[in-house]
Amino acid sequence: MSTIDIAVTAPNQIVDAANGVRYAYRRFGAASTDTLPLIMLVHFRGNLDNWDPLLLSALGSGREVITVDNAGVGLSTGLVPPTFTQMARDALSFVDALGLTRIDLLGFSIGGMIAQELTLIRPQLVRRLVLAGTAPRSGHLIHGWINDVQYLANVADNHPEDLLSLFFDVTATSQQAGREFLERRAARREDLDKPASLQARDAQMDAMTEWGIPDPTMLNRLAGITQPVLVANGDNDIMIPTPNSWLLAQHLPNARVRLYPDSGHGFLFQWAEQFAALVHSFLSGAGETKAP
Amino acid sequence: MSTIDIAVTAPNQIVDAANGVRYAYRRFGAASTDTLPLIMLVHFRGNLDNWDPLLLSALGSGREVITVDNAGVGLSTGLVPPTFTQMARDALSFVDALGLTRIDLLGFSIGGMIAQELTLIRPQLVRRLVLAGTAPRSGHLIHGWINDVQYLANVADNHPEDLLSLFFDVTATSQQAGREFLERRAARREDLDKPASLQARDAQMDAMTEWGIPDPTMLNRLAGITQPVLVANGDNDIMIPTPNSWLLAQHLPNARVRLYPDSGHGFLFQWAEQFAALVHSFLSGAGETKAP
Repeated sequence: MSTIDIAVTAPNQIVDAANGVRYAYRRFGAASTDTLPLIMLVHFRGNLDNWDPLLLSALGSGREVITVDNAGVGLSTGLVPPTFTQMARDALSFVDALGLTRIDLLGFSIGGMIAQELTLIRPQLVRRLVLAGTAPRSGHLIHGWINDVQYLANVADNHPEDLLSLFFDVTATSQQAGREFLERRAARREDLDKPASLQARDAQMDAMTEWGIPDPTMLNRLAGITQPVLVANGDNDIMIPTPNSWLLAQHLPNARVRLYPDSGHGFLFQWAEQFAALVHSFLSGAGETKAP
Repeated sequence: MSTIDIAVTAPNQIVDAANGVRYAYRRFGAASTDTLPLIMLVHFRGNLDNWDPLLLSALGSGREVITVDNAGVGLSTGLVPPTFTQMARDALSFVDALGLTRIDLLGFSIGGMIAQELTLIRPQLVRRLVLAGTAPRSGHLIHGWINDVQYLANVADNHPEDLLSLFFDVTATSQQAGREFLERRAARREDLDKPASLQARDAQMDAMTEWGIPDPTMLNRLAGITQPVLVANGDNDIMIPTPNSWLLAQHLPNARVRLYPDSGHGFLFQWAEQFAALVHSFLSGAGETKAP
């Protein structure tokens, strides 16, 4: 079995939630009584197919992993709301529909913004939190993107290859890692998700823009996330500038930062195995001297 | 035609300005009614020959480019004044002598300091501004250089090879990019500029030193630059420390930052084609949903 088979072969599943949304998701990996399911919230315009199967499989080798199309995205029904707070409520409806009362949570990019809101809304649900390539509300320079990013990220006729510019750095090594990611991503050929709609794009863009309105008092809200938090990013993220990782950690009461070299927003795909090992270590509490 | 011919073959030109200075400049590229001329202000001790012809040609392929020896530099007459404010007035005299009433402006290193002053003095002239490898007044650690930089940057008998230490990082890849830049720079063999004088060096050094005097209230002046601004640098600039790029963007009302990997002050020569593409994207307003 190849190292990416767990994720590539995970079937699409459906669950009906109390909010009237029918959620598409995939659930796979090594469930055990020692670990909680890890819920993963994906990036702008992303769906179930946008995670690197190498990352998913490496995470799934040590715990149960659940990826989901939030309301209005891909194969899920409904519409995408214009705020991350409402997207967090939508994600909670999904978690409730699965009957889960305690989870670990990983949010990547706008998924990390939803994850922050979700954790603030229902802290008792979330045991540990991983924030990848994301920013706090009112973070550094996230009130709209620089021109080339804005164009490529929003173009109606988008392609996986656009991610070479958006998610990987300009170096030959990072570009090569990007091409390898695209090959892995293309390994799944059946039971694919549906691309996110332009409604999803526009509502997510509105939510991101509001999230970026400068107002440093909003940073105080991070004091409400008392869980252990792992903050990670590439060292040169052009979508969510890397200094936002430090900003998160400065205001979260119990956070640590890990940056990866020669990489951008897609660091978690470029360094999939290294990052998965770090996530396992963090979620297990390995090396900690105090109880989690 | 090689990709650097536009710049390598651009003739030296002369214009007499109302301030009594005879300015040397080069003007080349694809003028069109859709674009404004891009005026480029060069670095410490730099003249018309100090721009990478690959960068100039890539920029000139999409718009008209004008490089200039400011008053007292190279083939231009006059003396270099001891402040960037006066250098900005000198640059304005040149722009006036060409009869230009609306421009895009790119300033690199001390050229970026002059560009900030010029934009504050005559905001209606400048449509969009690119600040490359530069710092705000009272920026981070710019009140004099660290020893080896101070020595090499000021040595009377300077050579292009000094730039391998000053403009490129210590990695093998950045040093190789530096050598390739020096080869491109040497491609022009006729109609060369005259090296900047020691008077130019000393006046520019005085201006830089004054610019670096710590006084954070000076950062408030950046609120007066309301144009869209692209701030860019290498991720490890030893001449103008990279954090100055973030500082600029935090205080400019409408700025975005792009940093380039494995590079220093000379990032715009090391990543010439990538940076030129970003500048074109920025100046064209690509991806923007609102009018500039």
